[in-house]
Amino acid sequence: MNELYNNLYDEDALHEECGVFGIYDFDANDVASSIYYGLFALQHRGQESCGIAVSDTQGPKGNMLSYKGMGLVNEVFTTEQLEKMHGDIGVGHVRYSTAGSSTRENAQPLVLNYVKGTLALAHNGNLINAAELRHDLEYTGAIFQTTIDSEVIAYHIARERLNSKTVEEAVGRACRKLKGAYSLVVASPRKLIGARDPQGFKPLCIGKRDNAYIITSETCALDTIGATFVRDIKPGEVVTITPENGIVSNLDMTVPKEQEARCIFEYIYFARPDSHIDGESVYASRIKAGRFLAQDSPVEADLVTGVPESGNAAALGYSLESGIPYGTAFVKNAYVGRTFIKPKQSARESSVQVKLNVLKEAVQGKRVIMIDDSIVRGTTSDRIVKMLRDAGATEVHVRISSPPFLWPCYFGTDIPAREQLIAYNRSIEDIRQIIGADSLGYLELERLPQLVNGLPICNGCFTGNYPMDPPTEDIRGDYYDKEADLEKRILSRP
Amino acid sequence: MNELYNNLYDEDALHEECGVFGIYDFDANDVASSIYYGLFALQHRGQESCGIAVSDTQGPKGNMLSYKGMGLVNEVFTTEQLEKMHGDIGVGHVRYSTAGSSTRENAQPLVLNYVKGTLALAHNGNLINAAELRHDLEYTGAIFQTTIDSEVIAYHIARERLNSKTVEEAVGRACRKLKGAYSLVVASPRKLIGARDPQGFKPLCIGKRDNAYIITSETCALDTIGATFVRDIKPGEVVTITPENGIVSNLDMTVPKEQEARCIFEYIYFARPDSHIDGESVYASRIKAGRFLAQDSPVEADLVTGVPESGNAAALGYSLESGIPYGTAFVKNAYVGRTFIKPKQSARESSVQVKLNVLKEAVQGKRVIMIDDSIVRGTTSDRIVKMLRDAGATEVHVRISSPPFLWPCYFGTDIPAREQLIAYNRSIEDIRQIIGADSLGYLELERLPQLVNGLPICNGCFTGNYPMDPPTEDIRGDYYDKEADLEKRILSRP
Amino acid sequence: MNELYNNLYDEDALHEECGVFGIYDFDANDVASSIYYGLFALQHRGQESCGIAVSDTQGPKGNMLSYKGMGLVNEVFTTEQLEKMHGDIGVGHVRYSTAGSSTRENAQPLVLNYVKGTLALAHNGNLINAAELRHDLEYTGAIFQTTIDSEVIAYHIARERLNSKTVEEAVGRACRKLKGAYSLVVASPRKLIGARDPQGFKPLCIGKRDNAYIITSETCALDTIGATFVRDIKPGEVVTITPENGIVSNLDMTVPKEQEARCIFEYIYFARPDSHIDGESVYASRIKAGRFLAQDSPVEADLVTGVPESGNAAALGYSLESGIPYGTAFVKNAYVGRTFIKPKQSARESSVQVKLNVLKEAVQGKRVIMIDDSIVRGTTSDRIVKMLRDAGATEVHVRISSPPFLWPCYFGTDIPAREQLIAYNRSIEDIRQIIGADSLGYLELERLPQLVNGLPICNGCFTGNYPMDPPTEDIRGDYYDKEADLEKRILSRP
Amino acid sequence: MNELYNNLYDEDALHEECGVFGIYDFDANDVASSIYYGLFALQHRGQESCGIAVSDTQGPKGNMLSYKGMGLVNEVFTTEQLEKMHGDIGVGHVRYSTAGSSTRENAQPLVLNYVKGTLALAHNGNLINAAELRHDLEYTGAIFQTTIDSEVIAYHIARERLNSKTVEEAVGRACRKLKGAYSLVVASPRKLIGARDPQGFKPLCIGKRDNAYIITSETCALDTIGATFVRDIKPGEVVTITPENGIVSNLDMTVPKEQEARCIFEYIYFARPDSHIDGESVYASRIKAGRFLAQDSPVEADLVTGVPESGNAAALGYSLESGIPYGTAFVKNAYVGRTFIKPKQSARESSVQVKLNVLKEAVQGKRVIMIDDSIVRGTTSDRIVKMLRDAGATEVHVRISSPPFLWPCYFGTDIPAREQLIAYNRSIEDIRQIIGADSLGYLELERLPQLVNGLPICNGCFTGNYPMDPPTEDIRGDYYDKEADLEKRILSRP
Repeated sequence: MNELYNNLYDEDALHEECGVFGIYDFDANDVASSIYYGLFALQHRGQESCGIAVSDTQGPKGNMLSYKGMGLVNEVFTTEQLEKMHGDIGVGHVRYSTAGSSTRENAQPLVLNYVKGTLALAHNGNLINAAELRHDLEYTGAIFQTTIDSEVIAYHIARERLNSKTVEEAVGRACRKLKGAYSLVVASPRKLIGARDPQGFKPLCIGKRDNAYIITSETCALDTIGATFVRDIKPGEVVTITPENGIVSNLDMTVPKEQEARCIFEYIYFARPDSHIDGESVYASRIKAGRFLAQDSPVEADLVTGVPESGNAAALGYSLESGIPYGTAFVKNAYVGRTFIKPKQSARESSVQVKLNVLKEAVQGKRVIMIDDSIVRGTTSDRIVKMLRDAGATEVHVRISSPPFLWPCYFGTDIPAREQLIAYNRSIEDIRQIIGADSLGYLELERLPQLVNGLPICNGCFTGNYPMDPPTEDIRGDYYDKEADLEKRILSRP
Repeated sequence: MNELYNNLYDEDALHEECGVFGIYDFDANDVASSIYYGLFALQHRGQESCGIAVSDTQGPKGNMLSYKGMGLVNEVFTTEQLEKMHGDIGVGHVRYSTAGSSTRENAQPLVLNYVKGTLALAHNGNLINAAELRHDLEYTGAIFQTTIDSEVIAYHIARERLNSKTVEEAVGRACRKLKGAYSLVVASPRKLIGARDPQGFKPLCIGKRDNAYIITSETCALDTIGATFVRDIKPGEVVTITPENGIVSNLDMTVPKEQEARCIFEYIYFARPDSHIDGESVYASRIKAGRFLAQDSPVEADLVTGVPESGNAAALGYSLESGIPYGTAFVKNAYVGRTFIKPKQSARESSVQVKLNVLKEAVQGKRVIMIDDSIVRGTTSDRIVKMLRDAGATEVHVRISSPPFLWPCYFGTDIPAREQLIAYNRSIEDIRQIIGADSLGYLELERLPQLVNGLPICNGCFTGNYPMDPPTEDIRGDYYDKEADLEKRILSRP
Repeated sequence: MNELYNNLYDEDALHEECGVFGIYDFDANDVASSIYYGLFALQHRGQESCGIAVSDTQGPKGNMLSYKGMGLVNEVFTTEQLEKMHGDIGVGHVRYSTAGSSTRENAQPLVLNYVKGTLALAHNGNLINAAELRHDLEYTGAIFQTTIDSEVIAYHIARERLNSKTVEEAVGRACRKLKGAYSLVVASPRKLIGARDPQGFKPLCIGKRDNAYIITSETCALDTIGATFVRDIKPGEVVTITPENGIVSNLDMTVPKEQEARCIFEYIYFARPDSHIDGESVYASRIKAGRFLAQDSPVEADLVTGVPESGNAAALGYSLESGIPYGTAFVKNAYVGRTFIKPKQSARESSVQVKLNVLKEAVQGKRVIMIDDSIVRGTTSDRIVKMLRDAGATEVHVRISSPPFLWPCYFGTDIPAREQLIAYNRSIEDIRQIIGADSLGYLELERLPQLVNGLPICNGCFTGNYPMDPPTEDIRGDYYDKEADLEKRILSRP
Repeated sequence: MNELYNNLYDEDALHEECGVFGIYDFDANDVASSIYYGLFALQHRGQESCGIAVSDTQGPKGNMLSYKGMGLVNEVFTTEQLEKMHGDIGVGHVRYSTAGSSTRENAQPLVLNYVKGTLALAHNGNLINAAELRHDLEYTGAIFQTTIDSEVIAYHIARERLNSKTVEEAVGRACRKLKGAYSLVVASPRKLIGARDPQGFKPLCIGKRDNAYIITSETCALDTIGATFVRDIKPGEVVTITPENGIVSNLDMTVPKEQEARCIFEYIYFARPDSHIDGESVYASRIKAGRFLAQDSPVEADLVTGVPESGNAAALGYSLESGIPYGTAFVKNAYVGRTFIKPKQSARESSVQVKLNVLKEAVQGKRVIMIDDSIVRGTTSDRIVKMLRDAGATEVHVRISSPPFLWPCYFGTDIPAREQLIAYNRSIEDIRQIIGADSLGYLELERLPQLVNGLPICNGCFTGNYPMDPPTEDIRGDYYDKEADLEKRILSRP
């Protein structure tokens, strides 16, 4: 199961930045509805704001209709709104803000007019040279109305367009100037374009339904709208879709395979389990994580259970490998939503209790292995362990299907400051005591590539070894103390 | 897991009428917050409207503050609203309308002034003599401002109060006039009263937290607010809670045990699995249902899976009994909400597809046993079976953890007209063909009492044999053709 | 001009309780739309809540559709809502709460089911025996869900219906038990009924448009929907409208003419100037008030101006009588609405200043006579006088087109507690000093009947002489200290 | 009175584009509240969207907080929102869209980051070379996210900033490239800047309150917040306000006085009557218009009345000049708002009737002179004339306090297409017949300069003689057929 739903009851979770969805239907002009359902399938990738922009390639050039708002897809869009948005090409976006503050102005897609008409642009990932690029642009008189990377990207596309024969050439040229993570979908008046950074940090794939092509973050969005998976966009690839030529590819930014650096957390946590990224099943990689935990951190017990929903697949893997029966131990309240009133500190109800309950029958008198995907601050884990004990579990063994978090992410994942990470400056035994478990095991670092059959990955958040140097300045205006951090990194290495 | 969440993606589900929650805190005057979280835990019992009424027993007699609205608990109430509602006693209600139309006027609790001050009243269940009682009242000059049974009950309490020494006596006298299902919580200026019909159709239990007593529909609401279960209110019992005497019981409406008639669907589907009703664990009864299915409808297969969330527990039971591995086969979109825009008939996206996806890795090449709690109209089942086949399942065997629905319910469950029930006038083989399964098995009728260790149950919806004669007239104004129906019932008996 | 608009910028104004509108269209079933515009024309009579109830006399008996909400007519109703409300008969209501607190539950019309089907009822005025009547009902087992008089009236109609041949007979019998002010419109399944108390406190009139009859508070509502005035409903009259017999009258509650007691403030302030009440033009009576002021409180000046909007007509009258030129001296901000944020006490902007500005050109160097309809607390008057002086007026003479307020109203007008009235225990010279005027004149008490050509009026709020004894108990639970008040009344008489 | 309120009941009215308000308070950081009330006073200048941006000059450079939304000032802003916006400098804007479509994206102020930090910019007026300027910018790689002129202006400021020592120098340089109408307020991190085009089309003035300076569209906004008028910003002037130097002026864009071209419609209709523009009282100019009408189009009558609110001042002037008594003849419903449901064509209620009623007493048996400020399409005038006759007026003489509209406006007023103008290709006698008046008189063209004591004005909408050549292309993408129009203009000249 997908663990992003975790957000809803667990403030102590990581957050993905964004999901993107673009479609070009050569036969119909109602793509807004497909984008709506596509975004709905990607909702776990961002719950703060969303938007849709569509255009009619047969209509006057550059007439892009867009609608954006704060909130979930089904809160922002109404039937009336969708029905007004006629078009055969369009892009959509769901957002959780990492870079750029959480305001309506920063919602995507970004719709812009430039010398050649109108573009709509949706972006997932964090650039590490956004601040630099922005300064450069400002010194030529550029103005910025948002604080999102996408505006910087858009500017570069517009500038490169002056020296490019085609919009896809301009997109390619612009991408060469970007450093960091970007999975990009662009709708121009007559073309749908996808671009993915050379490291392939974030997923991006192509699908097809009748005479419509889709470029989107995850394959689950293809399933949802009844489309078939065609292929992933490769790291460093720019893809252009037109009625004349179908899918045309430019591979001009590729790097040697070993320099690719997929975000491993997409597999462990972010992506929906029914998605496939670069050929690997997310679900299968989680089952594997569970199996590895069973091999590397075995323990005698009567029941393996997952913290819903994110721990379930790894729990199943652990059970399959260990032979210890799998079972459900928790009931989650399905109605927790954005407007849910959190219990006060002083109240007798706790946030965790209100959202999660234990099935006494399932755990009473049993030694329980409880699998979760990660521990960030650790503020929730101790409560859940206690709930299991209160319900009669005789032992509680915690297994985590990822290594301990130790470092910030610069590429699009919102990890709290190091000081707030439970694993920072603490041994595993320390953590075990804090959360009150009988034993605690994390996934071994070397297991990570095995989860994805050896695909090159980024494990910066576990090791501090990033595929490219982190930025010294943040587009958001927070300056990053590189020296101090470097020192810390070196000192804290095992 | 609880299957009421099903509602969200499955219009083809049954609906419970209501959940009730009352609390009297001898020490504090912030019960509104506890009612909020209690209702939140009962949300699966009703999603159309909700309300809270509180009073301060130390304040001027009869000053009852109430707030009600259409929508979910977290949509209707804001922090500001809750903070305004000071009181040490109060009741709350969540509602899905079966009797009485779905309007704000019909939201509960019902707050009323009468000769002795103010009462707030929350009711779960359907009376079968409501229309009769109402006519009688009207002939003495009564006026009605809603179309809910609760107003009829309130009137009788007010009238009986004139001849009663205490309000609990009045509640008891009023209850003696009611026929049908009622689990009732009443907050009077100085007392919290619970009453349950002699058949015990619907659950009602007592909990305690420090110096506060709670009367509510399900034990999960007690867990959620950190209270301990004290005991169930017995069928036919009226219970009064005061600071002076704690819990005081009247058992004057009890009937011989064999005339009790608990709604078996509370165990199979309505209640949350972490609740206990009359001493029986809902979760355990579902595990049992799965085990019975494995014994009575065995089949060779590679995987047992549940239709989320409602089928999961029975699937686990089937797996435990049969030894066939349990696994997750579906990913459900957690963001489907009340404002979700349903795909048009003509659209390429279907409602089921948008809400549910299959994990190909989990089912590919496998013979799958798929467990669901019921089939009502059958409009969803065929799509889910097809999705499993499309994902590569080689066989799909469907097992249903209840017998086939054949009859209406008069006691608080919203079952569609007989003509719309898939099992009506069809053999199991007919149904199997319609839903496209390789085999189909229902839970045997005689297994039902075994699910709950022999507690007397109502199985009217499966057999047409009701514990009391159905009404000839409906309070809602729909007249019921008893003759015609009786004929049908006799003719259709096997 | 109508002064209720005053509310918007002047918290220091009186408030009318309600406006009612009923219609029976023998030819069409879209009366909801006409009620909407009728209520819109009556909006000045109540801005807190509003509601519409309609029924189709050709449909099943007793199917009354209603919709109510807090706010203005154009805030509560949408096109969609109106279009759903099919019916050929219906009533509407706008409310400013005097009796009964300001909640959604207390919004009208009251829709009720009783022995003969459904009734919808809208009421303007305050009963003085409501508490008494309610106690009596409670002692026969009645329950109350609101705190408005209308529920008491409804109960009596329901009870009397048991002994009456017709609904209009029941309404008549019920009215005989009521004391105080009531202008009532009732829609039964097949009849539209209007009733007015014997004193005729509040207005009620009949209009006609094609084959539709209307009963409403003010004639301006007739003009708005394109209907013609037929006649006023007489004090003590019950009128029934049916397709068979048109307008049929019962005059059985009439009292000797001299006991009639129209609320004079309807003419001075509440009603719209384009309305006629009992044959007298509201506008004309205000012009007269101005003329009387000119005769009784003459002063030399260069300009007569009204405090918008309520003072304009009297200012015109003063100008016509005195020959001193009339002119506009103020600009009012038309955008002040219910959600307007009031300036904080500490802020440099004041509420009056934000809402009202002076036309310097109009007043500079001039001796100004400023006419207002009343001074309640006096908190606004001093600011306006100061604004005129700041703008260059050399003298400011204030004339008030009503006598000083000294007593509470028990019949439907919300007058603040005596202690807050500026005229309480103060001489006119005291008041003049407080508001900073060069001279101050009020309308003479004996002029009041002359405003309305000798119609018998109630002047209780000026004299403390009420047409019937005030109640000793308030339905709202505030007990009124009759003795103490009587003493005060006697002592304070001139 | 101000006639913009007309909008509310009269779709047949002209619309102003915008109002601007900037403030720099050297002593306090709560300017958001003053901007709120300032915009509230300017609401008549734009009702579609509004926004506020504030900054703290003592805080980190470039931290600009902004909030914008569709709707009226009191609909968009809440107390909570305002309280969050700390700052000592800021700008606000109300907008009615003429150029740029009516969307949230186009709401102002425009907040932008550029090389020197952050700017907030509010603009009133229409550029005629916006499309040209935008093309030029696009050819250097600029991107545009809105369709408003302000973005073009912002870009130029940002570009010029690279070669300017100060931001005010950059604003001045940018302004030199602009053609058309602009009254501009800019808040930079440390300076408040105002700029007005050399023709002075739109008003812009300076005020002071304690240690705070204000730059705003109309003086009425100064009165509202308790500030004193300092002086108008002169046509062609750029003004900079800082704590160090107070008001510093650059007059470098001035043109010979005779080339100035104030929009005369600001005096006739747009501005609030309590405002002064360039030394002239708006109210006084309307009184004069009425006097001129009395001189140029005299007629015998019994009553002069204005169509509320816009016609009242001219009516007073007509009365003063002619000696015919002035009186109120109409009652306007004050509750017409944005969400008001308009009567259907088929309904028996008309829009005019619902919003306006005649005081029969005032007009019955009288010869009435009815003054309005303009006739645009004429769709309302005929109904009002008819209403007067229905109320008993024996004659209705219409006088219009402006000449007939014949030409489009390119400088910020939204005039319908020529074909829709009632005066297009029609004689005054034709129009008189259409509206059903007994006589009709317009203000003479040569009277216009006399209204404002000889200030140079733009009368392009009456004569087609514009102070500068109209654009051939519209930024909105509507291409304007210059040839065809020129031909028409020449042919249609008298």
